[in-house]
Amino acid sequence: MPLLVVGSVALDSVETPTAKRDDILGGSAVFFSYAASYFTPVKLVSVVGDDWPHEHTELLKERNIDTSGLEVRPGAETFRWRGKYQPNMNDRDTLEVHLNVFGEFDPVLPEEFRRSKFIFLANGSPVVQAKVLDQVTDAQFTVADTMDLWIREQTDELLALLKRIDGLVLNDSEAKLLTGEENLVLAGHQVREMGPRFVVIKKGEHGAMFFSQHETYVLPAYPTEDVIDPTGAGDSFAGGMMGFLAEQDNFEPVTLKRAMAYGILVASFNVEDFSLGRMQKIDRDEIERRMEQYQKMLLF
Amino acid sequence: MPLLVVGSVALDSVETPTAKRDDILGGSAVFFSYAASYFTPVKLVSVVGDDWPHEHTELLKERNIDTSGLEVRPGAETFRWRGKYQPNMNDRDTLEVHLNVFGEFDPVLPEEFRRSKFIFLANGSPVVQAKVLDQVTDAQFTVADTMDLWIREQTDELLALLKRIDGLVLNDSEAKLLTGEENLVLAGHQVREMGPRFVVIKKGEHGAMFFSQHETYVLPAYPTEDVIDPTGAGDSFAGGMMGFLAEQDNFEPVTLKRAMAYGILVASFNVEDFSLGRMQKIDRDEIERRMEQYQKMLLF
Repeated sequence: MPLLVVGSVALDSVETPTAKRDDILGGSAVFFSYAASYFTPVKLVSVVGDDWPHEHTELLKERNIDTSGLEVRPGAETFRWRGKYQPNMNDRDTLEVHLNVFGEFDPVLPEEFRRSKFIFLANGSPVVQAKVLDQVTDAQFTVADTMDLWIREQTDELLALLKRIDGLVLNDSEAKLLTGEENLVLAGHQVREMGPRFVVIKKGEHGAMFFSQHETYVLPAYPTEDVIDPTGAGDSFAGGMMGFLAEQDNFEPVTLKRAMAYGILVASFNVEDFSLGRMQKIDRDEIERRMEQYQKMLLF
Repeated sequence: MPLLVVGSVALDSVETPTAKRDDILGGSAVFFSYAASYFTPVKLVSVVGDDWPHEHTELLKERNIDTSGLEVRPGAETFRWRGKYQPNMNDRDTLEVHLNVFGEFDPVLPEEFRRSKFIFLANGSPVVQAKVLDQVTDAQFTVADTMDLWIREQTDELLALLKRIDGLVLNDSEAKLLTGEENLVLAGHQVREMGPRFVVIKKGEHGAMFFSQHETYVLPAYPTEDVIDPTGAGDSFAGGMMGFLAEQDNFEPVTLKRAMAYGILVASFNVEDFSLGRMQKIDRDEIERRMEQYQKMLLF
Protein backbone atom coordinates (compact mmCIF):
# COMPACT_ATOMS: atom_id res chain seq x y z
CA MET A 1 0.00 0.00 0.00
CA PRO A 2 1.60 3.36 -0.98
CA LEU A 3 2.39 5.82 1.77
CA LEU A 4 2.05 9.60 1.48
CA VAL A 5 4.42 11.89 3.37
CA VAL A 6 4.30 15.66 3.46
CA GLY A 7 7.14 17.53 5.15
CA SER A 8 10.46 19.25 4.86
CA VAL A 9 13.31 18.61 2.46
CA ALA A 10 16.49 20.38 3.52
CA LEU A 11 20.20 20.87 3.20
CA ASP A 12 21.77 20.29 6.61
CA SER A 13 25.09 21.31 8.05
CA VAL A 14 25.97 19.09 10.97
CA GLU A 15 28.76 19.26 13.50
CA THR A 16 29.46 16.43 15.93
CA PRO A 17 32.26 16.19 18.49
CA THR A 18 34.41 14.37 15.95
CA ALA A 19 33.28 15.44 12.46
CA LYS A 20 31.53 18.06 10.37
CA ARG A 21 29.51 18.01 7.14
CA ASP A 22 28.08 20.91 5.16
CA ASP A 23 24.96 21.05 2.97
CA ILE A 24 24.14 17.37 3.17
CA LEU A 25 20.77 15.90 2.25
CA GLY A 26 18.29 16.19 5.12
CA GLY A 27 14.77 17.17 6.12
CA SER A 28 12.04 15.25 7.92
CA ALA A 29 10.33 14.01 4.74
CA VAL A 30 13.65 12.80 3.29
CA PHE A 31 14.64 10.67 6.29
CA PHE A 32 11.06 9.43 6.58
CA SER A 33 10.75 8.52 2.89
CA TYR A 34 14.05 6.74 2.68
CA ALA A 35 13.35 4.71 5.83
CA ALA A 36 9.83 3.81 4.65
CA SER A 37 11.07 2.83 1.19
CA TYR A 38 12.44 -0.48 2.52
CA PHE A 39 8.86 -1.53 3.10
CA THR A 40 6.52 0.21 0.67
CA PRO A 41 6.34 2.71 -2.22
CA VAL A 42 6.40 6.30 -0.94
CA LYS A 43 4.86 9.48 -2.38
CA LEU A 44 6.71 12.57 -1.24
CA VAL A 45 5.30 16.11 -1.15
CA SER A 46 7.60 19.01 -0.39
CA VAL A 47 9.25 22.07 -1.89
CA VAL A 48 12.86 23.06 -2.60
CA GLY A 49 14.62 25.95 -4.35
CA ASP A 50 16.60 25.88 -7.56
CA ASP A 51 19.79 25.44 -5.54
CA TRP A 52 18.61 21.86 -5.01
CA PRO A 53 21.11 19.30 -6.33
CA HIS A 54 19.25 17.15 -8.83
CA GLU A 55 21.17 14.03 -7.79
CA HIS A 56 19.34 14.10 -4.45
CA THR A 57 16.07 13.62 -6.31
CA GLU A 58 17.62 10.75 -8.25
CA LEU A 59 18.75 9.13 -5.01
CA LEU A 60 15.18 9.13 -3.73
CA LYS A 61 13.74 7.91 -7.04
CA GLU A 62 16.12 4.96 -7.00
CA ARG A 63 14.37 3.69 -3.91
CA ASN A 64 10.86 3.78 -5.34
CA ILE A 65 10.03 7.17 -3.86
CA ASP A 66 7.64 9.10 -6.09
CA THR A 67 9.04 12.64 -6.21
CA SER A 68 6.41 14.06 -8.56
CA GLY A 69 5.08 16.01 -5.58
CA LEU A 70 8.47 17.62 -4.93
CA GLU A 71 8.16 21.15 -6.26
CA VAL A 72 11.38 22.87 -7.38
CA ARG A 73 10.58 26.56 -7.17
CA PRO A 74 12.67 28.80 -9.45
CA GLY A 75 14.42 31.73 -7.81
CA ALA A 76 13.95 30.27 -4.33
CA GLU A 77 16.38 28.68 -1.91
CA THR A 78 16.05 25.33 -0.16
CA PHE A 79 15.43 25.06 3.59
CA ARG A 80 18.76 25.02 5.42
CA TRP A 81 19.53 23.92 8.97
CA ARG A 82 22.82 24.01 10.85
CA GLY A 83 23.25 22.19 14.13
CA LYS A 84 25.87 21.06 16.56
CA TYR A 85 25.69 17.99 18.77
CA GLN A 86 26.85 17.94 22.38
CA PRO A 87 29.33 15.24 23.43
CA ASN A 88 26.44 13.03 24.62
CA MET A 89 25.15 13.00 20.98
CA ASN A 90 21.59 13.34 22.29
CA ASP A 91 21.39 17.09 22.91
CA ARG A 92 22.00 19.50 20.10
CA ASP A 93 22.10 23.22 19.49
CA THR A 94 20.51 24.69 16.40
CA LEU A 95 23.01 27.26 15.13
CA GLU A 96 21.13 28.46 12.07
CA VAL A 97 17.70 27.93 10.49
CA HIS A 98 16.82 29.40 7.12
CA LEU A 99 13.33 28.21 6.23
CA ASN A 100 13.64 29.85 2.80
CA VAL A 101 11.11 28.36 0.38
CA PHE A 102 9.80 25.96 3.05
CA GLY A 103 8.54 28.99 4.99
CA GLU A 104 5.91 29.49 2.27
CA PHE A 105 5.14 25.80 1.88
CA ASP A 106 1.46 25.46 0.99
CA PRO A 107 1.21 21.88 -0.21
CA VAL A 108 -1.03 21.09 -3.16
CA LEU A 109 -1.29 17.33 -3.55
CA PRO A 110 -1.13 15.80 -7.03
CA GLU A 111 -4.52 14.31 -7.89
CA GLU A 112 -3.38 10.71 -7.53
CA PHE A 113 -1.76 11.42 -4.14
CA ARG A 114 -5.11 12.56 -2.69
CA ARG A 115 -6.46 9.03 -2.67
CA SER A 116 -3.65 7.81 -0.37
CA LYS A 117 -4.79 5.64 2.51
CA PHE A 118 -1.66 5.77 4.68
CA ILE A 119 -0.55 9.33 5.44
CA PHE A 120 2.27 10.80 7.47
CA LEU A 121 2.35 14.49 8.30
CA ALA A 122 6.02 15.03 9.06
CA ASN A 123 7.03 17.77 11.45
CA GLY A 124 5.58 21.07 10.28
CA SER A 125 3.04 23.71 11.22
CA PRO A 126 -0.29 22.17 12.25
CA VAL A 127 -1.93 24.67 9.88
CA VAL A 128 -0.07 23.17 6.94
CA GLN A 129 -0.69 19.66 8.27
CA ALA A 130 -4.44 20.40 8.41
CA LYS A 131 -4.38 21.63 4.81
CA VAL A 132 -3.05 18.23 3.76
CA LEU A 133 -5.86 16.48 5.59
CA ASP A 134 -8.35 18.78 3.81
CA GLN A 135 -7.11 17.46 0.47
CA VAL A 136 -7.05 13.71 1.07
CA THR A 137 -10.21 11.79 0.31
CA ASP A 138 -9.61 8.15 1.24
CA ALA A 139 -7.44 8.39 4.37
CA GLN A 140 -7.54 5.27 6.51
CA PHE A 141 -4.58 5.83 8.78
CA THR A 142 -3.10 9.26 9.47
CA VAL A 143 -0.15 9.92 11.75
CA ALA A 144 1.53 13.26 12.51
CA ASP A 145 4.75 14.44 14.08
CA THR A 146 5.14 17.80 15.81
CA MET A 147 7.71 19.83 17.75
CA ASP A 148 8.15 22.33 20.57
CA LEU A 149 7.77 25.35 18.26
CA TRP A 150 4.19 24.41 17.29
CA ILE A 151 3.29 23.29 20.80
CA ARG A 152 4.27 26.76 22.02
CA GLU A 153 3.17 28.98 19.17
CA GLN A 154 0.24 27.22 17.47
CA THR A 155 -1.31 25.41 20.42
CA ASP A 156 -4.94 25.77 19.34
CA GLU A 157 -4.20 24.69 15.78
CA LEU A 158 -2.26 21.69 17.07
CA LEU A 159 -5.06 20.71 19.47
CA ALA A 160 -7.54 20.92 16.58
CA LEU A 161 -5.28 18.71 14.46
CA LEU A 162 -5.00 16.11 17.22
CA LYS A 163 -8.74 15.45 16.90
CA ARG A 164 -8.33 14.61 13.21
CA ILE A 165 -5.48 12.07 13.29
CA ASP A 166 -5.07 8.43 14.30
CA GLY A 167 -1.65 8.75 15.83
CA LEU A 168 0.83 11.33 17.07
CA VAL A 169 4.58 10.81 17.25
CA LEU A 170 6.57 13.23 19.38
CA ASN A 171 9.64 13.18 21.58
CA ASP A 172 9.81 13.00 25.36
CA SER A 173 10.51 16.67 26.04
CA GLU A 174 7.68 17.64 23.67
CA ALA A 175 5.24 15.32 25.43
CA LYS A 176 6.16 16.93 28.74
CA LEU A 177 5.78 20.41 27.24
CA LEU A 178 2.39 19.62 25.71
CA THR A 179 0.96 18.18 28.93
CA GLY A 180 2.94 19.82 31.73
CA GLU A 181 3.38 16.28 33.09
CA GLU A 182 6.86 14.95 33.92
CA ASN A 183 5.96 11.25 34.18
CA LEU A 184 6.09 9.98 30.60
CA VAL A 185 3.51 7.25 31.20
CA LEU A 186 1.00 9.81 32.40
CA ALA A 187 2.06 12.31 29.71
CA GLY A 188 1.55 9.75 26.93
CA HIS A 189 -1.98 8.98 28.02
CA GLN A 190 -2.79 12.64 28.48
CA VAL A 191 -1.73 13.38 24.90
CA ARG A 192 -3.88 10.47 23.75
CA GLU A 193 -6.87 11.97 25.53
CA MET A 194 -6.40 15.10 23.41
CA GLY A 195 -7.58 13.17 20.37
CA PRO A 196 -5.34 10.62 18.69
CA ARG A 197 -6.14 6.93 19.05
CA PHE A 198 -2.51 6.26 19.87
CA VAL A 199 0.62 8.18 20.83
CA VAL A 200 4.27 7.28 20.41
CA ILE A 201 6.84 9.05 22.57
CA LYS A 202 10.36 8.89 21.13
CA LYS A 203 13.13 8.78 23.75
CA GLY A 204 16.18 8.93 21.47
CA GLU A 205 18.88 6.55 22.68
CA HIS A 206 16.38 5.10 25.18
CA GLY A 207 13.83 3.84 22.64
CA ALA A 208 10.13 4.61 22.34
CA MET A 209 6.88 4.27 24.27
CA PHE A 210 3.44 3.43 22.91
CA PHE A 211 0.08 4.44 24.35
CA SER A 212 -3.41 3.44 23.27
CA GLN A 213 -6.56 3.07 25.33
CA HIS A 214 -5.73 -0.52 26.23
CA GLU A 215 -1.97 -0.69 25.87
CA THR A 216 1.12 0.94 27.33
CA TYR A 217 4.51 -0.35 26.37
CA VAL A 218 8.10 0.63 25.87
CA LEU A 219 10.72 -0.81 23.58
CA PRO A 220 14.41 0.01 24.04
CA ALA A 221 16.63 1.40 21.30
CA TYR A 222 18.89 -1.08 19.56
CA PRO A 223 22.27 -0.65 21.28
CA THR A 224 24.68 0.58 18.63
CA GLU A 225 28.17 1.78 19.37
CA ASP A 226 28.47 3.60 16.04
CA VAL A 227 26.56 6.79 16.71
CA ILE A 228 27.93 9.12 14.05
CA ASP A 229 25.02 11.55 13.49
CA PRO A 230 21.62 11.32 15.18
CA THR A 231 20.01 13.80 12.75
CA GLY A 232 16.85 12.28 11.29
CA ALA A 233 16.65 9.45 13.85
CA GLY A 234 13.08 10.38 14.81
CA ASP A 235 12.00 10.76 11.18
CA SER A 236 13.55 7.47 10.12
CA PHE A 237 11.90 5.84 13.14
CA ALA A 238 8.53 7.11 11.92
CA GLY A 239 9.39 6.05 8.37
CA GLY A 240 10.22 2.50 9.38
CA MET A 241 7.08 2.28 11.49
CA MET A 242 4.68 3.72 8.89
CA GLY A 243 6.41 1.91 6.03
CA PHE A 244 5.84 -1.45 7.70
CA LEU A 245 2.19 -0.63 8.50
CA ALA A 246 1.55 0.43 4.89
CA GLU A 247 3.27 -2.71 3.63
CA GLN A 248 1.07 -4.86 5.87
CA ASP A 249 -1.98 -2.71 5.00
CA ASN A 250 -3.07 -3.21 8.57
CA PHE A 251 -2.88 -1.26 11.79
CA GLU A 252 -4.05 -3.77 14.36
CA PRO A 253 -2.34 -3.58 17.79
CA VAL A 254 -0.03 -6.52 17.07
CA THR A 255 1.08 -4.95 13.78
CA LEU A 256 1.59 -1.57 15.43
CA LYS A 257 4.00 -3.03 17.96
CA ARG A 258 5.99 -4.83 15.31
CA ALA A 259 5.99 -1.62 13.26
CA MET A 260 7.42 0.29 16.21
CA ALA A 261 10.22 -2.25 16.46
CA TYR A 262 11.02 -1.79 12.75
CA GLY A 263 11.06 1.97 13.31
CA ILE A 264 13.56 1.54 16.13
CA LEU A 265 15.81 -0.63 13.99
CA VAL A 266 15.76 1.60 10.91
CA ALA A 267 16.59 4.56 13.18
CA SER A 268 19.51 2.58 14.64
CA PHE A 269 20.96 2.27 11.14
CA ASN A 270 20.26 5.91 10.34
CA VAL A 271 22.44 7.22 13.17
CA GLU A 272 25.43 5.17 12.03
CA ASP A 273 26.46 7.76 9.43
CA PHE A 274 25.71 11.30 8.28
CA SER A 275 22.64 12.00 6.16
CA LEU A 276 21.43 8.83 4.39
CA GLY A 277 24.98 7.41 4.28
CA ARG A 278 24.32 4.29 6.32
CA MET A 279 20.82 3.70 5.02
CA GLN A 280 22.09 3.75 1.43
CA LYS A 281 24.26 0.75 2.26
CA ILE A 282 21.61 -1.52 3.75
CA ASP A 283 18.81 -3.62 2.33
CA ARG A 284 15.71 -5.23 3.78
CA ASP A 285 17.66 -8.39 4.62
CA GLU A 286 20.01 -6.43 6.83
CA ILE A 287 17.05 -4.90 8.65
CA GLU A 288 15.62 -8.40 9.15
CA ARG A 289 18.93 -9.67 10.52
CA ARG A 290 18.99 -6.84 13.06
CA MET A 291 15.34 -7.62 13.86
CA GLU A 292 16.33 -11.19 14.72
CA GLN A 293 19.05 -9.92 17.04
CA TYR A 294 16.66 -7.40 18.58
CA GLN A 295 13.98 -9.99 19.27
CA LYS A 296 16.57 -12.33 20.72
CA MET A 297 17.80 -9.50 22.93
CA LEU A 298 14.30 -9.05 24.37
CA LEU A 299 13.70 -12.73 25.00
CA PHE A 300 14.47 -14.28 28.38
CA MET B 1 21.50 -20.38 48.12
CA PRO B 2 21.99 -17.64 50.77
CA LEU B 3 23.18 -14.24 49.61
CA LEU B 4 25.55 -11.99 51.53
CA VAL B 5 25.25 -8.21 51.30
CA VAL B 6 27.51 -5.67 52.92
CA GLY B 7 26.55 -2.00 52.73
CA SER B 8 24.82 0.94 54.31
CA VAL B 9 21.78 1.04 56.57
CA ALA B 10 20.39 4.53 56.94
CA LEU B 11 17.63 6.84 58.03
CA ASP B 12 16.55 8.89 55.02
CA SER B 13 14.66 12.14 54.75
CA VAL B 14 13.14 12.47 51.32
CA GLU B 15 11.38 15.34 49.63
CA THR B 16 9.57 14.90 46.31
CA PRO B 17 7.58 17.52 44.38
CA THR B 18 4.40 16.34 46.12
CA ALA B 19 5.38 14.82 49.49
CA LYS B 20 7.97 14.67 52.24
CA ARG B 21 9.08 12.00 54.73
CA ASP B 22 11.58 12.27 57.58
CA ASP B 23 13.82 9.56 59.06
CA ILE B 24 12.45 6.68 57.07
CA LEU B 25 14.19 3.34 56.67
CA GLY B 26 16.80 3.44 53.90
CA GLY B 27 20.35 2.56 52.92
CA SER B 28 21.72 0.52 50.05
CA ALA B 29 21.91 -2.76 51.98
CA VAL B 30 18.34 -2.37 53.23
CA PHE B 31 16.78 -1.88 49.78
CA PHE B 32 18.98 -4.63 48.40
CA SER B 33 18.17 -7.12 51.16
CA TYR B 34 14.45 -6.55 51.06
CA ALA B 35 14.33 -6.89 47.26
CA ALA B 36 16.47 -10.05 47.32
CA SER B 37 14.38 -11.58 50.10
CA TYR B 38 11.58 -12.46 47.64
CA PHE B 39 13.97 -14.96 46.11
CA THR B 40 16.47 -16.22 48.65
CA PRO B 41 17.61 -15.94 52.29
CA VAL B 42 19.81 -12.88 52.84
CA LYS B 43 22.63 -12.24 55.28
CA LEU B 44 23.09 -8.55 56.01
CA VAL B 45 26.27 -6.90 57.33
CA SER B 46 26.17 -3.26 58.35
CA VAL B 47 26.36 -0.92 61.32
CA VAL B 48 23.91 1.49 62.98
CA GLY B 49 23.84 3.67 66.09
CA ASP B 50 21.73 3.27 69.18
CA ASP B 51 19.20 5.73 67.71
CA TRP B 52 18.21 2.85 65.43
CA PRO B 53 14.53 1.92 65.80
CA HIS B 54 14.41 -1.76 66.72
CA GLU B 55 11.24 -2.28 64.67
CA HIS B 56 13.28 -1.78 61.50
CA THR B 57 15.36 -4.82 62.39
CA GLU B 58 12.16 -6.76 63.02
CA LEU B 59 10.83 -5.75 59.61
CA LEU B 60 13.91 -7.20 57.95
CA LYS B 61 13.85 -10.37 60.05
CA GLU B 62 10.26 -11.00 59.04
CA ARG B 63 11.42 -11.46 55.48
CA ASN B 64 14.07 -14.05 56.22
CA ILE B 65 16.91 -11.53 56.36
CA ASP B 66 19.60 -12.61 58.82
CA THR B 67 20.48 -9.46 60.76
CA SER B 68 23.06 -11.07 63.05
CA GLY B 69 25.69 -9.11 61.11
CA LEU B 70 23.99 -5.77 61.82
CA GLU B 71 26.04 -4.16 64.56
CA VAL B 72 24.25 -1.68 66.83
CA ARG B 73 27.03 0.50 68.22
CA PRO B 74 26.27 2.18 71.56
CA GLY B 75 26.76 5.93 71.74
CA ALA B 76 26.86 6.26 67.94
CA GLU B 77 24.37 7.65 65.47
CA THR B 78 23.00 5.97 62.37
CA PHE B 79 23.93 7.17 58.86
CA ARG B 80 21.49 9.87 57.76
CA TRP B 81 20.79 11.19 54.28
CA ARG B 82 18.47 13.98 53.20
CA GLY B 83 17.60 14.48 49.54
CA LYS B 84 15.19 16.34 47.31
CA TYR B 85 13.94 15.14 43.94
CA GLN B 86 13.53 17.41 40.93
CA PRO B 87 10.15 17.46 39.18
CA ASN B 88 11.40 14.87 36.67
CA MET B 89 11.87 12.44 39.63
CA ASN B 90 15.14 11.25 38.08
CA ASP B 91 17.53 13.98 39.22
CA ARG B 92 17.98 14.67 42.89
CA ASP B 93 19.94 17.00 45.13
CA THR B 94 21.58 15.68 48.26
CA LEU B 95 20.83 18.26 50.94
CA GLU B 96 22.57 16.61 53.89
CA VAL B 97 24.79 13.59 54.48
CA HIS B 98 25.83 12.54 57.97
CA LEU B 99 27.82 9.33 57.67
CA ASN B 100 27.96 9.06 61.46
CA VAL B 101 28.78 5.49 62.51
CA PHE B 102 28.90 4.32 58.87
CA GLY B 103 31.93 6.56 58.36
CA GLU B 104 33.92 4.15 60.56
CA PHE B 105 32.38 1.01 59.06
CA ASP B 106 35.00 -1.73 59.13
CA PRO B 107 33.01 -4.87 58.50
CA VAL B 108 33.89 -8.02 60.37
CA LEU B 109 31.90 -10.90 58.95
CA PRO B 110 30.38 -13.46 61.33
CA GLU B 111 32.12 -16.80 60.86
CA GLU B 112 29.20 -18.43 59.08
CA PHE B 113 28.84 -15.48 56.68
CA ARG B 114 32.40 -15.96 55.42
CA ARG B 115 31.46 -19.12 53.58
CA SER B 116 28.85 -17.30 51.44
CA LYS B 117 28.97 -18.11 47.75
CA PHE B 118 26.87 -15.25 46.41
CA ILE B 119 28.11 -11.85 47.53
CA PHE B 120 27.00 -8.30 46.87
CA LEU B 121 29.17 -5.36 47.85
CA ALA B 122 26.63 -2.56 48.01
CA ASN B 123 27.74 0.98 47.33
CA GLY B 124 30.62 1.87 49.62
CA SER B 125 34.31 2.66 49.63
CA PRO B 126 36.28 0.21 47.49
CA VAL B 127 38.66 -0.11 50.45
CA VAL B 128 35.86 -1.44 52.62
CA GLN B 129 34.56 -3.57 49.75
CA ALA B 130 38.02 -5.13 49.38
CA LYS B 131 38.12 -5.91 53.11
CA VAL B 132 34.95 -7.94 52.69
CA LEU B 133 36.51 -9.91 49.85
CA ASP B 134 39.55 -10.57 52.06
CA GLN B 135 37.28 -12.30 54.58
CA VAL B 136 35.19 -14.55 52.34
CA THR B 137 36.53 -18.01 51.66
CA ASP B 138 34.11 -19.72 49.26
CA ALA B 139 32.98 -16.89 46.98
CA GLN B 140 31.60 -18.10 43.65
CA PHE B 141 29.88 -15.00 42.40
CA THR B 142 30.74 -11.50 43.57
CA VAL B 143 29.11 -8.31 42.35
CA ALA B 144 29.76 -4.74 43.47
CA ASP B 145 28.07 -1.37 43.13
CA THR B 146 29.95 1.93 43.21
CA MET B 147 29.34 5.67 42.85
CA ASP B 148 30.84 8.92 41.57
CA LEU B 149 32.50 9.72 44.92
CA TRP B 150 34.70 6.58 44.79
CA ILE B 151 35.36 6.91 41.06
CA ARG B 152 36.71 10.40 41.73
CA GLU B 153 38.43 9.96 45.08
CA GLN B 154 39.53 6.32 45.29
CA THR B 155 40.19 5.57 41.64
CA ASP B 156 43.15 3.25 42.19
CA GLU B 157 41.40 1.32 44.93
CA LEU B 158 38.34 0.96 42.73
CA LEU B 159 40.39 -0.22 39.74
CA ALA B 160 42.06 -2.81 41.99
CA LEU B 161 38.67 -4.00 43.20
CA LEU B 162 37.37 -4.35 39.62
CA LYS B 163 39.95 -7.07 39.03
CA ARG B 164 38.60 -9.11 41.94
CA ILE B 165 34.87 -9.18 41.15
CA ASP B 166 32.62 -10.98 38.66
CA GLY B 167 30.26 -8.11 37.98
CA LEU B 168 29.93 -4.36 38.49
CA VAL B 169 26.63 -2.50 38.68
CA LEU B 170 26.73 1.27 38.21
CA ASN B 171 24.56 3.97 36.76
CA ASP B 172 24.91 5.67 33.39
CA SER B 173 26.55 8.89 34.58
CA GLU B 174 29.02 6.86 36.66
CA ALA B 175 29.94 4.70 33.67
CA LYS B 176 30.63 7.85 31.66
CA LEU B 177 32.67 9.31 34.50
CA LEU B 178 34.73 6.14 34.96
CA THR B 179 35.56 5.81 31.25
CA GLY B 180 35.32 9.34 29.84
CA GLU B 181 33.16 7.79 27.12
CA GLU B 182 29.72 9.26 26.33
CA ASN B 183 28.38 6.35 24.27
CA LEU B 184 27.00 3.90 26.85
CA VAL B 185 27.61 0.85 24.67
CA LEU B 186 31.29 1.72 24.41
CA ALA B 187 31.45 2.79 28.07
CA GLY B 188 29.95 -0.52 29.23
CA HIS B 189 32.53 -2.57 27.39
CA GLN B 190 35.36 -0.30 28.54
CA VAL B 191 34.36 -0.84 32.16
CA ARG B 192 34.24 -4.58 31.50
CA GLU B 193 37.78 -4.44 30.16
CA MET B 194 38.87 -3.01 33.51
CA GLY B 195 38.27 -6.41 35.10
CA PRO B 196 34.74 -7.62 35.78
CA ARG B 197 33.35 -10.43 33.66
CA PHE B 198 30.16 -8.45 33.18
CA VAL B 199 28.88 -4.91 33.73
CA VAL B 200 25.35 -3.64 34.25
CA ILE B 201 24.63 0.03 33.57
CA LYS B 202 21.49 1.26 35.29
CA LYS B 203 19.59 3.96 33.40
CA GLY B 204 16.85 4.77 35.94
CA GLU B 205 13.49 5.23 34.19
CA HIS B 206 15.08 3.95 30.96
CA GLY B 207 16.01 0.48 32.21
CA ALA B 208 19.40 -1.24 32.25
CA MET B 209 22.13 -2.44 29.90
CA PHE B 210 24.22 -5.59 30.18
CA PHE B 211 27.73 -6.16 28.86
CA SER B 212 29.79 -9.32 28.78
CA GLN B 213 32.43 -10.43 26.32
CA HIS B 214 29.87 -12.00 24.03
CA GLU B 215 26.69 -10.14 24.86
CA THR B 216 25.36 -6.59 24.80
CA TYR B 217 21.73 -6.00 25.59
CA VAL B 218 19.33 -3.48 27.02
CA LEU B 219 16.04 -4.03 28.80
CA PRO B 220 13.60 -1.15 29.33
CA ALA B 221 12.18 -0.19 32.71
CA TYR B 222 8.67 -1.40 33.45
CA PRO B 223 6.46 1.61 32.68
CA THR B 224 4.81 2.61 35.93
CA GLU B 225 2.79 5.78 36.37
CA ASP B 226 3.07 5.66 40.16
CA VAL B 227 6.54 7.04 40.74
CA ILE B 228 6.35 8.19 44.36
CA ASP B 229 9.99 7.93 45.51
CA PRO B 230 12.89 6.61 43.39
CA THR B 231 15.22 6.26 46.41
CA GLY B 232 16.66 2.76 46.48
CA ALA B 233 15.61 1.88 42.93
CA GLY B 234 19.16 0.93 41.95
CA ASP B 235 19.69 -1.08 45.13
CA SER B 236 16.39 -2.94 44.81
CA PHE B 237 17.27 -3.61 41.15
CA ALA B 238 20.52 -5.21 42.27
CA GLY B 239 18.69 -7.08 45.03
CA GLY B 240 16.14 -8.56 42.64
CA MET B 241 18.87 -9.53 40.22
CA MET B 242 21.23 -11.10 42.77
CA GLY B 243 18.35 -12.66 44.71
CA PHE B 244 17.15 -14.52 41.63
CA LEU B 245 20.69 -15.67 40.75
CA ALA B 246 21.26 -16.96 44.28
CA GLU B 247 17.89 -18.70 44.22
CA GLN B 248 18.79 -20.40 40.93
CA ASP B 249 22.33 -21.08 42.21
CA ASN B 250 23.49 -20.42 38.68
CA PHE B 251 24.93 -17.49 36.77
CA GLU B 252 24.83 -18.68 33.19
CA PRO B 253 24.09 -16.00 30.54
CA VAL B 254 20.43 -17.03 30.18
CA THR B 255 19.93 -16.84 33.96
CA LEU B 256 21.70 -13.50 34.15
CA LYS B 257 19.30 -11.96 31.63
CA ARG B 258 16.27 -13.26 33.44
CA ALA B 259 17.78 -12.00 36.71
CA MET B 260 18.19 -8.54 35.22
CA ALA B 261 14.50 -8.56 34.28
CA TYR B 262 13.57 -9.48 37.86
CA GLY B 263 15.76 -6.64 39.09
CA ILE B 264 13.93 -4.20 36.83
CA LEU B 265 10.55 -5.40 38.06
CA VAL B 266 11.39 -5.31 41.77
CA ALA B 267 12.75 -1.78 41.27
CA SER B 268 9.50 -0.80 39.54
CA PHE B 269 7.62 -1.80 42.69
CA ASN B 270 10.14 -0.08 44.94
CA VAL B 271 9.56 3.38 43.40
CA GLU B 272 5.81 3.14 43.93
CA ASP B 273 6.05 4.31 47.55
CA PHE B 274 8.51 5.77 50.07
CA SER B 275 11.07 3.51 51.76
CA LEU B 276 9.94 -0.13 51.67
CA GLY B 277 6.25 0.88 51.66
CA ARG B 278 5.31 -0.70 48.37
CA MET B 279 7.61 -3.70 48.68
CA GLN B 280 6.05 -4.57 52.04
CA LYS B 281 2.71 -5.00 50.28
CA ILE B 282 3.79 -7.39 47.52
CA ASP B 283 4.63 -11.06 47.37
CA ARG B 284 6.44 -13.27 44.89
CA ASP B 285 3.18 -13.92 43.01
CA GLU B 286 2.74 -10.23 42.33
CA ILE B 287 6.29 -10.05 40.97
CA GLU B 288 5.52 -13.03 38.72
CA ARG B 289 2.34 -11.37 37.44
CA ARG B 290 4.29 -8.24 36.53
CA MET B 291 6.91 -10.48 34.90
CA GLU B 292 4.20 -11.95 32.66
CA GLN B 293 3.10 -8.47 31.63
CA TYR B 294 6.70 -7.42 31.07
CA GLN B 295 7.50 -10.40 28.86
CA LYS B 296 4.28 -9.85 26.91
CA MET B 297 5.26 -6.20 26.47
CA LEU B 298 8.56 -7.23 24.88
CA LEU B 299 7.04 -9.81 22.56
CA PHE B 300 6.05 -8.88 19.01
